[in-house]
Amino acid sequence: MWKAEIRITLKEGVVDPQGKAVEKTLGELGYSQVEQVQIGKYVELVVNTPQRAEADRQVDEICRKVLINPVLEEYTYQLVEVL
Amino acid sequence: MWKAEIRITLKEGVVDPQGKAVEKTLGELGYSQVEQVQIGKYVELVVNTPQRAEADRQVDEICRKVLINPVLEEYTYQLVEVL
Repeated sequence: MWKAEIRITLKEGVVDPQGKAVEKTLGELGYSQVEQVQIGKYVELVVNTPQRAEADRQVDEICRKVLINPVLEEYTYQLVEVL
Repeated sequence: MWKAEIRITLKEGVVDPQGKAVEKTLGELGYSQVEQVQIGKYVELVVNTPQRAEADRQVDEICRKVLINPVLEEYTYQLVEVL
């Protein structure tokens, strides 16, 4: 079995109002050294197959076809073997 | 400068309806090997300080005091040096 740890973020250049709001709040709270706050999604899922290549194929397809909005978002993931 | 890569997930035992909905949809789409879908948040931010220990202190505090709901959520993060 393979656990996929998937990070979904906005593409470069896409405005992130939620990130800007958090950054402004942090500034007001005194965290003046904090910059470039970006808010994305984190998805974990398990693919119950012994083959890493098959898990990789499924996870990549699931990201592209189901989890992300390809106009606005991009993704990276890593696979961790689960025993 | 240090970039924090923060994962925010629901605590063990907290029901994740969004994850369940995605899992059900994936099953209907034919991904029968996919299990344990969990949806969380992913936050990136940069702390503009040269000291790793100071960045670590600020990020941990920001997670606890601003980003997470301590009743429902937990967090992990890693720091990556940005040049």
